Amino acid sequence: MGDMDRRRAGALLAAEGLDGMVLFRPEAFRYATGLAAGVATMWGQAGSAIALVPADPAAQLAAVMSDHAAAGAGQLAGVLDIRTHRIWIDAVTVDSPRTIADIDVAYRASGNVGPRPETFDRQACFRLLADLLAERGLSRGVLGIDLDFMPAADFAALKAAVPGVAWRDASDILRRLRLIKNGREIDRLRTAAACAEAGLRSMARAARPGVRVAELSAAWLSGATEAARLGGHGLSGHWDYISIGPDLHNAAAPLGEGDLVKADVGTLVDGYSSDGARTFVWGKASPLAADIYKALLEAFLAGAEILKPGRRFGEVHETMLSTMRRNGFREYHRGHFGHSVGAAAGIEEWPFLSSGNDIVIEPDMVLALEAPFYANGIGALMIEEQFLVTPQGAESMNELPRDLVSLGQA
Amino acid sequence: MGDMDRRRAGALLAAEGLDGMVLFRPEAFRYATGLAAGVATMWGQAGSAIALVPADPAAQLAAVMSDHAAAGAGQLAGVLDIRTHRIWIDAVTVDSPRTIADIDVAYRASGNVGPRPETFDRQACFRLLADLLAERGLSRGVLGIDLDFMPAADFAALKAAVPGVAWRDASDILRRLRLIKNGREIDRLRTAAACAEAGLRSMARAARPGVRVAELSAAWLSGATEAARLGGHGLSGHWDYISIGPDLHNAAAPLGEGDLVKADVGTLVDGYSSDGARTFVWGKASPLAADIYKALLEAFLAGAEILKPGRRFGEVHETMLSTMRRNGFREYHRGHFGHSVGAAAGIEEWPFLSSGNDIVIEPDMVLALEAPFYANGIGALMIEEQFLVTPQGAESMNELPRDLVSLGQA
Repeated sequence: MGDMDRRRAGALLAAEGLDGMVLFRPEAFRYATGLAAGVATMWGQAGSAIALVPADPAAQLAAVMSDHAAAGAGQLAGVLDIRTHRIWIDAVTVDSPRTIADIDVAYRASGNVGPRPETFDRQACFRLLADLLAERGLSRGVLGIDLDFMPAADFAALKAAVPGVAWRDASDILRRLRLIKNGREIDRLRTAAACAEAGLRSMARAARPGVRVAELSAAWLSGATEAARLGGHGLSGHWDYISIGPDLHNAAAPLGEGDLVKADVGTLVDGYSSDGARTFVWGKASPLAADIYKALLEAFLAGAEILKPGRRFGEVHETMLSTMRRNGFREYHRGHFGHSVGAAAGIEEWPFLSSGNDIVIEPDMVLALEAPFYANGIGALMIEEQFLVTPQGAESMNELPRDLVSLGQA
Repeated sequence: MGDMDRRRAGALLAAEGLDGMVLFRPEAFRYATGLAAGVATMWGQAGSAIALVPADPAAQLAAVMSDHAAAGAGQLAGVLDIRTHRIWIDAVTVDSPRTIADIDVAYRASGNVGPRPETFDRQACFRLLADLLAERGLSRGVLGIDLDFMPAADFAALKAAVPGVAWRDASDILRRLRLIKNGREIDRLRTAAACAEAGLRSMARAARPGVRVAELSAAWLSGATEAARLGGHGLSGHWDYISIGPDLHNAAAPLGEGDLVKADVGTLVDGYSSDGARTFVWGKASPLAADIYKALLEAFLAGAEILKPGRRFGEVHETMLSTMRRNGFREYHRGHFGHSVGAAAGIEEWPFLSSGNDIVIEPDMVLALEAPFYANGIGALMIEEQFLVTPQGAESMNELPRDLVSLGQA
């Protein structure tokens, strides 16, 4: 099953007077069902993967998905109420075939025959959803829907295809559910963070005078991938923002004496992205870079100190910004000093450690805390780690030293 | 500037009675402006990057974009009418600073000061668009918009913020524009295809008994990345669908005698994704696998033969399917046997080589032609190449042999 807490979902839906919610965003589909949404979602169009989450936690989850994705669903397929639609990809299961004629027999035995749509049939998907809603007595229900994803063109078609439903934006409910992680989600984020740090160690070893971002990026990825392989798992994705030297817009700058190397990186495990950053210097940092780093580290530590249950997201922002102010940065501003991490659409998951944000920190949140500074003419400096909020405080999932580490000889 | 042909855009917009179009999808923004849409688009929400394309090809392109993305825009920034909004990322440009006080001076000299929004300010973005429309006399215009991207929640906010405009879905106009490539786009796709093939050579070298998909995938990526590095450019992305052996749902299957290895792979160059596939066998293929491959190759060649200007997309589908029928596949169906390639949202770009599709093939289209067969119990087999349509026919951008290549000793 998926990672959504059905009891919390039920409570949040009931509080909004919703009979359930219908989710179209591929990441939301996977969160609810535990199943990959499948290749037919590649165009960002709605319909090929739909999760129906009834408000009643005891009511069975239902899904509309492609025959292709359902075939790869394995045992989970039996737990859900799945309705499949045919997509463009021909596939068949055969047992000990010897000839092409044997394959034809297998197609006919499967019952899954006939012409296939060009890509996927949106109207067929919406009809399957309408069937499900009718069977659940929800055809005239009040249902949540993820309107922060649903393309306007698809929403118009959905409203025409399923006319009796009163649709309400449930994007916020989904965000609130995602904010509290279960043990499996926490494990994925911990694993992802460890792979990303292994990549940073590999990147640090690849540093030498004249090296450029492309090579550091490749070294990072190689180290991260190798760590995943040794851990016996794959990475579902990766990203990196690495910079070298004072010109932030020169991606071809060669590493030289005193250059800062900022690496803000993440790997994805089952869709869950880590987020962390370290700053290095080749040789010896300038006194100014050292001063900036000292201020950032102080702000970071001040933020980490109050990253604990009962504190508000906005307090962390206030504390970190005022630390920067005390260190002389009068005009420095950041919209946020961190955010939740998870498997939402962006690397940075809502909510944010932003000014005035009164959301309260709770156990089992996983939050990235970041203290960055970007200046053309100096370079980029950043300290970022992800923390698991515990009943007592918060544990960092990162292990690399927090110092401005020198990579070469001065 | 971007890759959009303003003259063709003007003609298509005029034919639909539109005064221009406003594009929100990050890929569409880049296509129109030539500029990266920036990190504030990571959540899939609309507003942080908006391109305004007037119907009159002589009228200047305009863009709403973040201060962060605009700072990285370089010389292109001067060609466009750019309106910037502030996002969460603090940044400043300084000249020979010695102290933190010098940095404060630089902030104030830039004029870009004050608190920053938590992420980005959608309403501020829409107001900048409203200003642009007013200045262009389009406040009460009829404007196209990419409603196949625009999330319904954002569209509702846009209609409220810019109430006088009559919005029309321009998704189809954008798709038609993308279908014809310029020389720069063709070069990117050619380069991307070459890197992907270099990856396949690397993958083939990594094959040995017991190897698994994760290792072949890493070998593929390594070869593709190295080819890009030697070519003096980076890859903006990559993807691979590699399978080993008869069980299509076992990603941990070790390579053994007679196993098929299907690799459907692509690399991205400046956002343009190649798409191509080859099938290998470890040792000797079974007689049935050889028969299936022979049919697929015949279908592929029959399709390639009529991939030329004046033919219709549907004819290619008909020819390839009937070739499969002649080879005994009575129940085999594919929704499409290929598609345009480019830098749209999905790897597979509209339109598709699908049944009854009456779109006519024209020069400067780049089309992926694919003949795949998937059977649990046998494995996956696939031949795919991308072709540049020329005035006379079509040139493949791929070089690897089209045979079912044996990787090991029988």
